[in-house]
Amino acid sequence: MDAYSIGIDLGGTNLRAAAIDRDGKMLTKIAGSTPVAHGPGPVVDDMAQSVEKLRQQFGRDRLAGIGAGVPGNIDMAKGVIVGWGNMPIFNGYAMRDELSKRLDTKVILENDANAAALGERWMGAGRGVDDLVLMTLGTGIGGGIIVGGHILHGQIGMAGELGHITVSPNGNPCGCGNRGCVEKHASATAVSAMARLLNLGHDLTAEQVYDLAVQGNDRAREIFKAMGEALGIALAGLVNVFNFPLYLLGGGVVAAWDFFAPAMLAEVERRSFTYRSTLKTAPTRIEAAKLGGDAGLYGAACLPLEDVRT
Amino acid sequence: MDAYSIGIDLGGTNLRAAAIDRDGKMLTKIAGSTPVAHGPGPVVDDMAQSVEKLRQQFGRDRLAGIGAGVPGNIDMAKGVIVGWGNMPIFNGYAMRDELSKRLDTKVILENDANAAALGERWMGAGRGVDDLVLMTLGTGIGGGIIVGGHILHGQIGMAGELGHITVSPNGNPCGCGNRGCVEKHASATAVSAMARLLNLGHDLTAEQVYDLAVQGNDRAREIFKAMGEALGIALAGLVNVFNFPLYLLGGGVVAAWDFFAPAMLAEVERRSFTYRSTLKTAPTRIEAAKLGGDAGLYGAACLPLEDVRT
Repeated sequence: MDAYSIGIDLGGTNLRAAAIDRDGKMLTKIAGSTPVAHGPGPVVDDMAQSVEKLRQQFGRDRLAGIGAGVPGNIDMAKGVIVGWGNMPIFNGYAMRDELSKRLDTKVILENDANAAALGERWMGAGRGVDDLVLMTLGTGIGGGIIVGGHILHGQIGMAGELGHITVSPNGNPCGCGNRGCVEKHASATAVSAMARLLNLGHDLTAEQVYDLAVQGNDRAREIFKAMGEALGIALAGLVNVFNFPLYLLGGGVVAAWDFFAPAMLAEVERRSFTYRSTLKTAPTRIEAAKLGGDAGLYGAACLPLEDVRT
Repeated sequence: MDAYSIGIDLGGTNLRAAAIDRDGKMLTKIAGSTPVAHGPGPVVDDMAQSVEKLRQQFGRDRLAGIGAGVPGNIDMAKGVIVGWGNMPIFNGYAMRDELSKRLDTKVILENDANAAALGERWMGAGRGVDDLVLMTLGTGIGGGIIVGGHILHGQIGMAGELGHITVSPNGNPCGCGNRGCVEKHASATAVSAMARLLNLGHDLTAEQVYDLAVQGNDRAREIFKAMGEALGIALAGLVNVFNFPLYLLGGGVVAAWDFFAPAMLAEVERRSFTYRSTLKTAPTRIEAAKLGGDAGLYGAACLPLEDVRT
């Protein structure tokens, strides 16, 4: 019987792959060597080599399947990349079939934030929950929506672009053409930008702003409060739209939970009648994700394990 | 073989019922006589009497089933009203079982905006579309979301509260506790309020403001432009979240389409990368609903016709 699955997580800069067994135990995790900037061909070669390494180690017959999470929108029917943020070189690339050809076996492709949502549902903070939303807070903000145990893909795989929900109609401009997207007010990049606006220091990372907040710096704490309020507006809207039992926040900035969550939750409570009116009967949980940077690996690995996922 | 179904549409003030055949032909439509303000008992008696009238006319054996759309949130598993806007007297009422008992047959209960979405999908502007969002623009703004042919209910039937999406964080206060809900900036009530703010006249209805716009009144036109912009912000968010092929707008105010739609669509185009980037390949349709006040009747009637719905 098949006993493990391979998940690939192609990040903004590099790739990782892991062999994970049916019970969700990570057997091993390896890193690729080809920068994503080299373009689709070399990157897919690298993906194939990583898989090959893992299946030599753990055996071909025991391999249930291969899943890959990539930071782009995917036409799920065709397995083709339809949009890849700042890397247009990937657009239109038939990544699923190219990878499948090199490996001589079926591959399932998924958007990375969607994969992270599946991973959290399998082995993280979403265990046993069939309907949930994950927002990933990083350089930008991504999202994955699970409805009835399945990822909501939308017409051409672009559902879940939660980072571009408007939270301030005349707010910070966004590369997407909008103004006031939540990712321009609540991502790691937004935290850095606010630190600069408040003269906290030049080019501080979100982590450095967090360290200042821990040390008691008022301006650093104010930044996370503003971040929490922006997130709260977006989340209140999502609670009103979905009435789901669980909303998860993932990504590096979640480490600053204690500094942004109070403002965020207060904002959701004020702005969502649904949130307030179900507090006692069927409370809406808004929580930090648990798998950190491995969520996407778990999610990619569970893509071929249909019995595990549903 | 069963040949028709009965749909009930319980509105904010009164009720209507219709017999509709499997092909979606409305056989007849009748009105009840008991004001909703009389509370749940008398209203359910009235619903039962309306159904009885129709099934005597069209025959008991040919009746496929009974569906009812009501202006409240429903715990779908229990068939109990969990929230009913300004009529708390209905809260906690086991409407499905009460109606079922009086009629001695099964009844399917649904929220009215959800029923309208199903109706538009069956016989209106959403034919053949499995994934769509309907926003109903009336005194308030309601919503129904269809995913894969099924209504998205959420945890306790409160999904689709689209009227309470924030479009202006410090905008008009809303009875829900929030500020800047789209229904406070884009409903019929909001149009009236803006008319007052612009000294267009005291207590003008949205329809009267529309008439002024038709006559070329600049302030009336400005009001619909502001309404369209607010709607556009909410819709852009929904397009980013769902990437669905179709978003419908229903309700009385849709008559003013020519005056608010240009501003609305411009706002969506500016604020949604998903909308823009799919314009040529898989365009997002944002259109007026087609069934008017009968959408809810069609939707309620199709609830028992599972083969028709899926």
